[in-house]
Amino acid sequence: MYTFSEQSLAYQARLQAFMDEHIFPNEARYAAELHQASSRFSALPIMDELKEKARAVGLWNLFVSPDHAEYCDHGGFSNFDYAPLAELMGRVLWSPEVFNCNAPDTGNMEVLMKYGSPAQRERWLTPLLDGKIRSSYAMTEPQVASSDATNVELLIESDGDEWVLNGRKWFITSAMYERTRIFIVMGKSDPDKPNRHLQQSQILVEKDTPGLTVVRPLTTLGYDDAPLGHAELHFDNVRVPAENMLLGAGRGFEIAQGRLGPGRIHHCMRLIGAAQRSLELACERVESRSTFGKKLSKHQSVREDISRCFSEIEMARLLLLKTCHKMDEMTPQGALDMIAASKSTVPLMMQTVIDRCMQMHGAGGLTEDYCMAEAFNYARWCRQADGPDQVHQMALGKMVINKYAGT
Amino acid sequence: MYTFSEQSLAYQARLQAFMDEHIFPNEARYAAELHQASSRFSALPIMDELKEKARAVGLWNLFVSPDHAEYCDHGGFSNFDYAPLAELMGRVLWSPEVFNCNAPDTGNMEVLMKYGSPAQRERWLTPLLDGKIRSSYAMTEPQVASSDATNVELLIESDGDEWVLNGRKWFITSAMYERTRIFIVMGKSDPDKPNRHLQQSQILVEKDTPGLTVVRPLTTLGYDDAPLGHAELHFDNVRVPAENMLLGAGRGFEIAQGRLGPGRIHHCMRLIGAAQRSLELACERVESRSTFGKKLSKHQSVREDISRCFSEIEMARLLLLKTCHKMDEMTPQGALDMIAASKSTVPLMMQTVIDRCMQMHGAGGLTEDYCMAEAFNYARWCRQADGPDQVHQMALGKMVINKYAGT
Amino acid sequence: MYTFSEQSLAYQARLQAFMDEHIFPNEARYAAELHQASSRFSALPIMDELKEKARAVGLWNLFVSPDHAEYCDHGGFSNFDYAPLAELMGRVLWSPEVFNCNAPDTGNMEVLMKYGSPAQRERWLTPLLDGKIRSSYAMTEPQVASSDATNVELLIESDGDEWVLNGRKWFITSAMYERTRIFIVMGKSDPDKPNRHLQQSQILVEKDTPGLTVVRPLTTLGYDDAPLGHAELHFDNVRVPAENMLLGAGRGFEIAQGRLGPGRIHHCMRLIGAAQRSLELACERVESRSTFGKKLSKHQSVREDISRCFSEIEMARLLLLKTCHKMDEMTPQGALDMIAASKSTVPLMMQTVIDRCMQMHGAGGLTEDYCMAEAFNYARWCRQADGPDQVHQMALGKMVINKYAGT
Amino acid sequence: MYTFSEQSLAYQARLQAFMDEHIFPNEARYAAELHQASSRFSALPIMDELKEKARAVGLWNLFVSPDHAEYCDHGGFSNFDYAPLAELMGRVLWSPEVFNCNAPDTGNMEVLMKYGSPAQRERWLTPLLDGKIRSSYAMTEPQVASSDATNVELLIESDGDEWVLNGRKWFITSAMYERTRIFIVMGKSDPDKPNRHLQQSQILVEKDTPGLTVVRPLTTLGYDDAPLGHAELHFDNVRVPAENMLLGAGRGFEIAQGRLGPGRIHHCMRLIGAAQRSLELACERVESRSTFGKKLSKHQSVREDISRCFSEIEMARLLLLKTCHKMDEMTPQGALDMIAASKSTVPLMMQTVIDRCMQMHGAGGLTEDYCMAEAFNYARWCRQADGPDQVHQMALGKMVINKYAGT
Repeated sequence: MYTFSEQSLAYQARLQAFMDEHIFPNEARYAAELHQASSRFSALPIMDELKEKARAVGLWNLFVSPDHAEYCDHGGFSNFDYAPLAELMGRVLWSPEVFNCNAPDTGNMEVLMKYGSPAQRERWLTPLLDGKIRSSYAMTEPQVASSDATNVELLIESDGDEWVLNGRKWFITSAMYERTRIFIVMGKSDPDKPNRHLQQSQILVEKDTPGLTVVRPLTTLGYDDAPLGHAELHFDNVRVPAENMLLGAGRGFEIAQGRLGPGRIHHCMRLIGAAQRSLELACERVESRSTFGKKLSKHQSVREDISRCFSEIEMARLLLLKTCHKMDEMTPQGALDMIAASKSTVPLMMQTVIDRCMQMHGAGGLTEDYCMAEAFNYARWCRQADGPDQVHQMALGKMVINKYAGT
Repeated sequence: MYTFSEQSLAYQARLQAFMDEHIFPNEARYAAELHQASSRFSALPIMDELKEKARAVGLWNLFVSPDHAEYCDHGGFSNFDYAPLAELMGRVLWSPEVFNCNAPDTGNMEVLMKYGSPAQRERWLTPLLDGKIRSSYAMTEPQVASSDATNVELLIESDGDEWVLNGRKWFITSAMYERTRIFIVMGKSDPDKPNRHLQQSQILVEKDTPGLTVVRPLTTLGYDDAPLGHAELHFDNVRVPAENMLLGAGRGFEIAQGRLGPGRIHHCMRLIGAAQRSLELACERVESRSTFGKKLSKHQSVREDISRCFSEIEMARLLLLKTCHKMDEMTPQGALDMIAASKSTVPLMMQTVIDRCMQMHGAGGLTEDYCMAEAFNYARWCRQADGPDQVHQMALGKMVINKYAGT
Repeated sequence: MYTFSEQSLAYQARLQAFMDEHIFPNEARYAAELHQASSRFSALPIMDELKEKARAVGLWNLFVSPDHAEYCDHGGFSNFDYAPLAELMGRVLWSPEVFNCNAPDTGNMEVLMKYGSPAQRERWLTPLLDGKIRSSYAMTEPQVASSDATNVELLIESDGDEWVLNGRKWFITSAMYERTRIFIVMGKSDPDKPNRHLQQSQILVEKDTPGLTVVRPLTTLGYDDAPLGHAELHFDNVRVPAENMLLGAGRGFEIAQGRLGPGRIHHCMRLIGAAQRSLELACERVESRSTFGKKLSKHQSVREDISRCFSEIEMARLLLLKTCHKMDEMTPQGALDMIAASKSTVPLMMQTVIDRCMQMHGAGGLTEDYCMAEAFNYARWCRQADGPDQVHQMALGKMVINKYAGT
Repeated sequence: MYTFSEQSLAYQARLQAFMDEHIFPNEARYAAELHQASSRFSALPIMDELKEKARAVGLWNLFVSPDHAEYCDHGGFSNFDYAPLAELMGRVLWSPEVFNCNAPDTGNMEVLMKYGSPAQRERWLTPLLDGKIRSSYAMTEPQVASSDATNVELLIESDGDEWVLNGRKWFITSAMYERTRIFIVMGKSDPDKPNRHLQQSQILVEKDTPGLTVVRPLTTLGYDDAPLGHAELHFDNVRVPAENMLLGAGRGFEIAQGRLGPGRIHHCMRLIGAAQRSLELACERVESRSTFGKKLSKHQSVREDISRCFSEIEMARLLLLKTCHKMDEMTPQGALDMIAASKSTVPLMMQTVIDRCMQMHGAGGLTEDYCMAEAFNYARWCRQADGPDQVHQMALGKMVINKYAGT
């Protein structure tokens, strides 16, 4: 029904081989290094080692699109062609960093490619593309419903040739990470502007700026997602030079819109890989265990659950591929309906698929002995990341009603 | 992501125009004629009138595949290219007959194309292709779980140069219909054969053969699906000439396998059309009614439900298109996994979609004033037609387990 | 955990015996009489015969509460004590009329007991209690979302010593029925009143009043629910004497509130009986059929589905009993939370239970050969009757939020 | 509909007061002590402090039933009367230990009360009842599907006047805990016995017995459930004196059956408390946050979700209370159907309720800032504890089929 480009197919094969040779065999070592690290958020030796290997075989910055081909060696992948690569990476949750393809750095790099000044790009984009530093994207605030971006309250006030930031953020992925150096921070530079979509700005803030405190790591369902982590941040008169403003004061909402489409979709792609791997593990499990005198795989309800997992993964994958294709054809703005459909459907569906696969593993399925529990947390967490399902459903419902009953 | 052939796109446009001009405006008249007919199972004048118009513009026998291009004027449509045509027809449940594309005639014509002798084809296929007569496919039996085809008990015994049939069938679609002349009947000609898949035969039986009684029409959820209907049949020493045997005694299971793939998929395609139309009606409804001081379309839960309908229809459609494509590439036998995935997923999903759309219509949504209640019945009924969901899930589960954990 | 009164237990036994002796054995005869009746909405001989028998053994007007003990021989049953009786009747959908306990007559009789003048009671209540006539309750209108009762538009205008009614109603249960003589009609006598809950009145209208047209029967999911039926009515200058007003002009909303609690709950009670019977039929079915070499009852997914049905019926029954108990203790007004919980939970849950039981019966489960398809329609229809699920969920949600986070 | 005993009501009030005064205000301190403890599995000072206070006001060993009244001061609570006490404790997951009512100690104490010899009771039961030591129950094994208890493989071989244990266990709750001293271990003393239910024994093993290794803590969904924890254990020629055998060799299955009923039900009771608290938090949340111009509490879908949570908690609670009542009336063996119904229904239902409540909290709902994420993990984990849902559904389905279609 559809075919990937030659380029994509070749990279899929190369990536699959790399996963087989270097990633799956190192899952235990990665877990051990993380367990033994001096801090939960230290950089791990194995990561550097694997990054070097990946880069050596050209599996690097695969997320870069053809529009920004100058930033990569492979010429750029469309969203459609990148999807199967992201799915493969999703089978091991920490693996995207190996290929410099992990959130939130990919989105941040895109922001810099699209909206960064030459100086900003040189200072921050270059080391990010090199994997030398990591970055965060600071939008969500603890005290307001941030799914409505106009609720954001962090203040960005002008003072001479500086901006002064005051406020709180949380769920700032990667902010805990030892390697992380730079934050893109969303706040209000013009809170009294009548047009509520022109009140926000996005500005670059170095992690070690005085007044900026990384308060604590946060967990979701018990996971700290180390070593990247999710942090709470306090901004207390944080002073930033004027040239750190992105695109221009008052254009933060515009940047947010441009950033979120691909980011949402990348999460979904990876989740499909995580669910697909869970299904494959479940198949192995039910063939290897017996209860009440026969293999689990011969129980009808087990087969029914396996079939549901297969069909749901397949449907999610197709929905996502069509979304990617529409994004490629129409720009993300033209694909808002499909992006919302994917974002509000795929994480919940994959959460359910993984839940069934865990259940087929007995109590062990919930433990760190398998990749499923962490994948479940990832799916659950994605139902909030970049806005709760309900917000996307509301937006999509409105679009569909307008389409069929608009006046 | 995918494109239909030029041919398919042209026919989609032509079919859409025909639906707009001739089908939707005649829904009320069709209902009135059916209501006033002397019998529930009479042929209706409007049907003949519309068939003539459809044939005049080449919208005829669209189900015919390229393999049997000699039986149609359009050169044949692949399953993939036929899918959007069937979806369009599914918007009005009685419309496929207008285009000579209704079940079970399409499946029966395919059986005759593939397995019929020249004499059988001349006698039965020709008038079927002309829309002069209609046919039934008699497989399900009331006293056994017919989803396991080896359970079928109707006896087909050889007696001189005749076959003698004894047994009962039910859920025989179209058998009530005035126009129906010929039944393809599945039974056991060799019940003691060790290989249980070689016990069955399929044989042609004329509706007016002595000993064959059309006992009664059956309803599903209160619908008699007139004028085609679903009948219970009794075979009491029904004698049929030897040359009515299809393909050869003992090859009934083989024919059944070949027949069921596309049939299952055609039902699913039409269901998607029925659900899509329900969604469009729901959008109009929620824009036109208010409760508690605001339009239904502004209630968040309404938007969420609309968004779910959109996403689920889209996923079902994509799953089905991929299934069609695989059937085209691999033959139906090579696409058994995707056929089972579609068959066990799409009808339930569309039942749920239509249920939501009915609910948004208030009590009226359940009545004959809208097309939804009958479409709901169609979806519900399809969860049993050609085998219950559970049987297909069981088969698919087994295939998936073998793929990932096979030995 | 709970016990029914001695009185209730005795009547449960008596009713069970009557069902076993007179109702279940006559299901086929009832169906045949209905099928052969000159009109779908004729009174059936078997009904009169069974009513006489039921009345002879005191199984009559069991719905009457202790508050209105003067209208019955049994002293009145609390909602709690009536619940198991209604559940038993729910096993055969037409049986409540045998005991003069069918909707909407029970609700209408209660309205007359509570709000009727002596003259109204003598003229209408007495023959209703005798089962001589039947009645309808006309509230829902086709052109507005009637779940918000303030939307009702039928006009009731004063003209001399008469009231003049103009408007349309639909889904008026029993209005088709040959025996039905009297309608309680809700409309607006004072549409400009600032308090929107004082605009409505309820008034008694004889079925044969000039200007009142029974336009047509309506179906839900293909069922006409004959012989009672659901009708569309047109009121075209229908003139009614002043003394037919119930309670007083402007008090229609008050009456509606008082009427709806028990009515909603009676539907739920009967649905539980219908679902319980479906479950018992499914158990018999799965023990009697085999697929793929073993009894259906030995397939694990069948057992899982049976267990879900058992647990869900039990939970629904308990929720309902607690609701009844609270209504008895607190008056229905004090039990609005539990009534809303039952109304928005039980019908959908029973729809799902019955759907599973139908599925275990193969295609036959959808036909008139079993009671399940009609019970499914009943459950589906109850999700709209007396307001859609969503309206009750909205009301309950608001109450719960107020309870735990009220200011 | 039902009333608790005077005794239960009095203790409910006392317990509620204690929770309000001592438990809720100390949640932050408990978290801090756990965070700062030298080991994740250390005993915490706050626990000792609170235990002393609880015991001082008689809130101690509330789980003890009237059958074993000699072991408590309160005379014993039936399962029914204990249910609301357990629900209250369930609002704070670590609080049951404060009242010496935590799993698995309660179940282990019951085993000792019922099956322990006087010497065993003196040595182990007395300090357990005093809260001086803690215990574990070692049944599940990593290498077999332990939901079928006959699969258990740990060997218990006789050697002189000792038993020698070899094998592996995991998911052994409390085994990590510093305070834990004694394990009840299930294994096979007679693996060749033809009756598979007489092969098992249960035996007491001190934690510091040579050859017994606590290999590692396990997590579920990222939670280590510290300080009690769930451990993996290796038994390598662990020698235990003959007098440590419980009840007699070969009677392990019998003990397991007696133990599991109340244990399963206690988990469910606590889960209902956890879900109820989540609902109350969600109500507060939706009143305090706004999106898109209005309070979350005014969005219709929020109200619908709140109403679903209310109804589902209420149904689960009622199902459980009826189960408790039947256990009290009939002994647990007579209530196996209701125990299975509760066990296979309540945890999944509460998982769903808590999931909705988390979602209404935005991303914060998934963190340690609220009690919900940990409660979600508890619900998820209970779907495996004491056997996966599917095993209980299978057993219940079989019972129900036998009841209605038994021969």
